[in-house]
Amino acid sequence: MFIENCWYVAGWDKEVPADGLFSRTIINRPLVFWRDRNGQVVALLDRCCHRAARLSMGRTEQGGDQIRCMYHGLLYDRSGQCIGAPAQTRIPPNAKVRAFPVVERHRWIWVWMGDPALADPALIPDTQWLDHPQWRSLDGYLHYDVNYLLIADNLLDFSHLPFLHPTTVGGSTDYAAVLPKVERNQRGVRLTKWVANTQPPEYSAKYANYPEGARVDRWMYYDFVVPGVLLMDSGMMPAGTGGQDSHREDALAFRGCQALTPETETSTHYFFGHAHNFLIDRPEVTREIHAGIVKAFNEDRAMITAQQHNLALDPGFTMTPLSVDTALSQFRWVVAQFLKKESVAPVP
Amino acid sequence: MFIENCWYVAGWDKEVPADGLFSRTIINRPLVFWRDRNGQVVALLDRCCHRAARLSMGRTEQGGDQIRCMYHGLLYDRSGQCIGAPAQTRIPPNAKVRAFPVVERHRWIWVWMGDPALADPALIPDTQWLDHPQWRSLDGYLHYDVNYLLIADNLLDFSHLPFLHPTTVGGSTDYAAVLPKVERNQRGVRLTKWVANTQPPEYSAKYANYPEGARVDRWMYYDFVVPGVLLMDSGMMPAGTGGQDSHREDALAFRGCQALTPETETSTHYFFGHAHNFLIDRPEVTREIHAGIVKAFNEDRAMITAQQHNLALDPGFTMTPLSVDTALSQFRWVVAQFLKKESVAPVP
Amino acid sequence: MFIENCWYVAGWDKEVPADGLFSRTIINRPLVFWRDRNGQVVALLDRCCHRAARLSMGRTEQGGDQIRCMYHGLLYDRSGQCIGAPAQTRIPPNAKVRAFPVVERHRWIWVWMGDPALADPALIPDTQWLDHPQWRSLDGYLHYDVNYLLIADNLLDFSHLPFLHPTTVGGSTDYAAVLPKVERNQRGVRLTKWVANTQPPEYSAKYANYPEGARVDRWMYYDFVVPGVLLMDSGMMPAGTGGQDSHREDALAFRGCQALTPETETSTHYFFGHAHNFLIDRPEVTREIHAGIVKAFNEDRAMITAQQHNLALDPGFTMTPLSVDTALSQFRWVVAQFLKKESVAPVP
Repeated sequence: MFIENCWYVAGWDKEVPADGLFSRTIINRPLVFWRDRNGQVVALLDRCCHRAARLSMGRTEQGGDQIRCMYHGLLYDRSGQCIGAPAQTRIPPNAKVRAFPVVERHRWIWVWMGDPALADPALIPDTQWLDHPQWRSLDGYLHYDVNYLLIADNLLDFSHLPFLHPTTVGGSTDYAAVLPKVERNQRGVRLTKWVANTQPPEYSAKYANYPEGARVDRWMYYDFVVPGVLLMDSGMMPAGTGGQDSHREDALAFRGCQALTPETETSTHYFFGHAHNFLIDRPEVTREIHAGIVKAFNEDRAMITAQQHNLALDPGFTMTPLSVDTALSQFRWVVAQFLKKESVAPVP
Repeated sequence: MFIENCWYVAGWDKEVPADGLFSRTIINRPLVFWRDRNGQVVALLDRCCHRAARLSMGRTEQGGDQIRCMYHGLLYDRSGQCIGAPAQTRIPPNAKVRAFPVVERHRWIWVWMGDPALADPALIPDTQWLDHPQWRSLDGYLHYDVNYLLIADNLLDFSHLPFLHPTTVGGSTDYAAVLPKVERNQRGVRLTKWVANTQPPEYSAKYANYPEGARVDRWMYYDFVVPGVLLMDSGMMPAGTGGQDSHREDALAFRGCQALTPETETSTHYFFGHAHNFLIDRPEVTREIHAGIVKAFNEDRAMITAQQHNLALDPGFTMTPLSVDTALSQFRWVVAQFLKKESVAPVP
Repeated sequence: MFIENCWYVAGWDKEVPADGLFSRTIINRPLVFWRDRNGQVVALLDRCCHRAARLSMGRTEQGGDQIRCMYHGLLYDRSGQCIGAPAQTRIPPNAKVRAFPVVERHRWIWVWMGDPALADPALIPDTQWLDHPQWRSLDGYLHYDVNYLLIADNLLDFSHLPFLHPTTVGGSTDYAAVLPKVERNQRGVRLTKWVANTQPPEYSAKYANYPEGARVDRWMYYDFVVPGVLLMDSGMMPAGTGGQDSHREDALAFRGCQALTPETETSTHYFFGHAHNFLIDRPEVTREIHAGIVKAFNEDRAMITAQQHNLALDPGFTMTPLSVDTALSQFRWVVAQFLKKESVAPVP
């Protein structure tokens, strides 16, 4: 069960080449992506209507405005309509494959899996930090053999940071002790946290030229929306130099962009970039920050994969809810509402 | 669901050694093959009646007239009757394993999976070209992780040749444009095609010493019968030198013998030889022809395996029939009739 | 379906380190083992009650008296009760994981999978030979991808020895021809066999300095009890030097200890040690005896794994019972009685 009326991240822009085909399975559906004559990304179901061959094993024609299945030669336009079939005088009108709305924005390719009439680009989360000239990040991707909601749970939980990530993104104890404010909205949850006069976290302190022992004010705004997209705004400034949002210009800040895209019920694509606004002329800093994130994410993956094994051994397991689960419970509730709504009015 | 009352190719003759056991699973049944004292191939269910051990892990005795299970020592004769059990004074009369009629003919070992009373050797397709002194071929085998009918579909479709095999067996465009005549019979379909005054196909033109630019008459007779055996008679001669069948003696001809033997619902054994009647004293020509066929078959396998993945992702997929599907639709209809008949009168 | 009210061998003592966690799945349940401050082994379900994380990826605290889940930091005592949760003022009383009674005895760690109130250590089979000062053995372990009952069948059958193990533990023909006496009791079966004036078996003859051609009296007591534990007492002495049990002091004897512990329905842990009472000061003799046993067990594993494949191809297979199956049939009957009893009064 997956939300259909939603923008999913299908990949990094570079994954769909200027001239060639790219295949990725999203919520159990194989999709083929390519660029048309104008460089715009097209997405069709990667399954020829004739006998289910993979279109991604075919080729583009007419500069990308058409795709040909290289099993039996059926030719499709960008809308998925079959416009040619060898040795066939008449093309059956139902000879088409489903097309999916696509938007390429700020380095990510977004695909709408539900009713095309509802595919409003305004619903796409703002990941401008991935290609903003004043920010730097590297392109991240991990593949998980778990259901995407277990990863969403992880991302919506800060209580695990000091335990699972003591040497990476774990942060300081007093900061971890402050629970964020959790607000639910129509598409997900927003977490907010300001901690004044605390220690700088190890992973960013080294990039600041603050005096030895200096304390900082830290903040985090954390938007997590369906299907599983996280926009994180976090950072620190010298303690007392600003107020809550009133003065953040000279802070060391991060803008994390992360997206979970279910592949199947038990596998997930995970895209991420962790942009920073300081020392942007030093690529080695960007590489170091990225490597730290990847290390932490691999710690998560090992734990969550074992968790999935446990659930597979006993699908009847019911969790014991704790207060730290507020955010993830709220998000799961939002997902359930989307699914319920779509089960009443199925996506055509 | 598989046809039972049918001869299946179990293997190449050389796969069953003079002294030893050979195991292969056919339509979900493990079978053990060996040669008796007279060199005749015997086939039993490869499963001891006692506790399901594999007889193929045992040994033959009495020059091959008996087989002994090397788990607990049960001894069987060629009919599958247990004739000895250690520490057992009386052999239970129901202690036997099922035996299957076997015929070895023209390099292939055929096994009848249904009612032995119906096992008429006259039903075995004629593959004499595999050991005919005037023809040459090499022994081919591929294993597929797909249902056999997807491969049968492929073999009964010529429209894919120029798309999937442009550099191997694709052939010329004008030849491909001519659809064969399709006739259904009780055991399968027959396709016939004569094209006069066309280009010679690249893969055989190089073996003919025709003048530059010479055109040819080409033919193909293509018999495809249950469970999935193809006999192909194809070739070419200088244009206008003969009529349809009236004069084919000095032509460059092929006699293809191919057999699909389902292993399970999602895996298939594929046996083939592609005999030619020209340059038979030059083994390198035979090797080159064989290699070309194998290359094309691997192109098929990659495409069909991806097709199987698509069907696994959505078992409810229904195809869009096109006119090029006539032959394969007819063959699937024949298979369905066999299955229907056997479901009414089950094989004992 | 597994017996719950039973002691299962969870591992060799050395597998649970002095300081660290050990995970093993037993009858479909993941368990975590460690040693508390006193060195006593503790066993809990390896699944945090909060969100099913693996406790074995966590750490012990308080010298082993507590275990902390390193996903979200929940702390448990040795009884499985949660006694701490970060950012949680009150611990929910139902926040606990199931604890399992454990006894460490004679090199093996035993765990009781059913009702703790019934966990009587007196039910643990006596494997004193594994650490007896007058006996020597090495620690054996094999993993099987088969249901444990197929291995129990094998262990309760002597008829297979001359066929499957002709060069290892097959033994002499006249010894093999004598069927053991089979007695069923409440927890399993006992097999007894005395053969007077027979050939010494090859695998132990070489360790005896008997005269060339000397004959021996051989015995075997074989206790096989639920869930699948074998205690074997076997050996030989010069023919006529003793009576049945009246004089076995100077015999060459073995005490085999073997235990089958199901991991899942189709996989099994197999622990074994094969203690001998002769040449105990020569480690190379112990190694040689162990290697011979391992070789024979690998012969068994190859055969039984193929047997499991056959059963998977046709789950409806019914065996043909022979007289050699008496002991294994009796044991399967005992297992069925245990399962029946537990299905009437389920383990809490």
